[in-house]
Amino acid sequence: MIQRVLVDGREHDRISVGDRGLHYGDGLFETILIRDGMPCLWDRHMARLALGADRLGLPRPSPSMLRDEAVRIGTELDHGLLKLILTRGVGGRGYRPPATPHPRRILLSYASSPSSDPWIDGGVAIRFCETPASVNSHLAGIKHLNRLDAVLARREWDDPEIAEGLMCDEAGSFVGGTMTNLFVWDGVALATPSVTRSGLAGTVRAVAIEAASRAGIACVERPVTRRMIEEAVGLFLTNARIGVWPVSRLADRLLDPERLPLDLLSAVRRTAHTPEWSDP
Amino acid sequence: MIQRVLVDGREHDRISVGDRGLHYGDGLFETILIRDGMPCLWDRHMARLALGADRLGLPRPSPSMLRDEAVRIGTELDHGLLKLILTRGVGGRGYRPPATPHPRRILLSYASSPSSDPWIDGGVAIRFCETPASVNSHLAGIKHLNRLDAVLARREWDDPEIAEGLMCDEAGSFVGGTMTNLFVWDGVALATPSVTRSGLAGTVRAVAIEAASRAGIACVERPVTRRMIEEAVGLFLTNARIGVWPVSRLADRLLDPERLPLDLLSAVRRTAHTPEWSDP
Repeated sequence: MIQRVLVDGREHDRISVGDRGLHYGDGLFETILIRDGMPCLWDRHMARLALGADRLGLPRPSPSMLRDEAVRIGTELDHGLLKLILTRGVGGRGYRPPATPHPRRILLSYASSPSSDPWIDGGVAIRFCETPASVNSHLAGIKHLNRLDAVLARREWDDPEIAEGLMCDEAGSFVGGTMTNLFVWDGVALATPSVTRSGLAGTVRAVAIEAASRAGIACVERPVTRRMIEEAVGLFLTNARIGVWPVSRLADRLLDPERLPLDLLSAVRRTAHTPEWSDP
Repeated sequence: MIQRVLVDGREHDRISVGDRGLHYGDGLFETILIRDGMPCLWDRHMARLALGADRLGLPRPSPSMLRDEAVRIGTELDHGLLKLILTRGVGGRGYRPPATPHPRRILLSYASSPSSDPWIDGGVAIRFCETPASVNSHLAGIKHLNRLDAVLARREWDDPEIAEGLMCDEAGSFVGGTMTNLFVWDGVALATPSVTRSGLAGTVRAVAIEAASRAGIACVERPVTRRMIEEAVGLFLTNARIGVWPVSRLADRLLDPERLPLDLLSAVRRTAHTPEWSDP
């Protein structure tokens, strides 16, 4: 499924067993949608990566260098994904990072055909997960490599009809899906889990929050309770790969995607799926 | 510093960029002390690895195969460390693991000379960390590869005089050191942080709990508050590499290691430093 790989700009498909990304999950990643050979939301992905690098104490990678490398392997794809992994590289003693890290960047391209779109097909069925989302305010929001909570949550179901599972923290506050951000629509306003203690500040999540603001729809980042979800008029999910998924079923409860603010969702979807390059 | 490496039993120093250990920290590790060419606490390390494999849904690796490989690269060391990494290998789509994983095992040997022993040198100085320990009851206790909290905590200080930093969870409950388990001595009994929500069930931690029981010293696994630590008569730290470290200073406060139950600490240290092989 992996199409091509660049490790520090060179064609390679292996990395050192000493890499701190492997030993500790000491790094970051971005999963970028490619359409028509161009990445979508490139600037937002680069901004989140820079934020994550600051948080981990890694030097920020050069966006123009990443852009050059993304062009080298991404433009071969008509449709697919570009995954960028940035680790702290090799070195240090135990958990202690080297004083001057030599970060390693790995770009992987994955070809895929545009799959059937649940947006058009009437929404997705989702479930609740039992695996809790990890809580750590210093790691919340950024896209780091410590993703075992999502892996264990995704292991909870096999049913191909179920597209996603919702996770909450130990206190029962909802964080999002295993790989998506969650939006709850009460018929008037939107709520989405805050990402200050757990969860991920998704690129399309930010697009949706901004689009809601422009459309005059209130959207609050706050702790989301089970009750809010159970009483919701509608739910939708976002991430860079899927764009927007309306939810048509949560566990045993049917939801009508038509009751969601569809103009807003269309706008979000359009932005999430529009290829762009920043000026180099 | 890495002496030799075996990847799935073969001499290699590289792994596939597709490995889930790199992408998600989807795996486990053990750090095993080697003395006189033999591993210490081998059975305990193997037991914890099996527990972690069960928790992550990985097939348990064969201890006899691991033993054979450990002999191949470990017995060359007079003194050092053997690090064993077990990942879920390559495969799956996104967070979803493959139905039948092909785990990858990586053994690394690190030579080291027995360093000066803070036990003999009067204890270690430690500090408080600001980075919180991640909380997730499904991941607590096992030695998985999601260690960014410890990495960020270890980044907080440079002073070579400081040997370790204590971490607490978001609620202010102490979890242990960045790489050690913590024991609090109030003059009569011991307390050590429970590892059901966060933290790691260290091999030497278990040795200490059992040795306390044999010595008729109460040792409670419980939430450890800042107050308990500030009012402690003594503190000590454990892990597989160091064995036991008495604490002589915590931040600005001096502690007298002589007031610790030294017979107990000697017994723990002896067990932690005794090479052993299980029967194959």
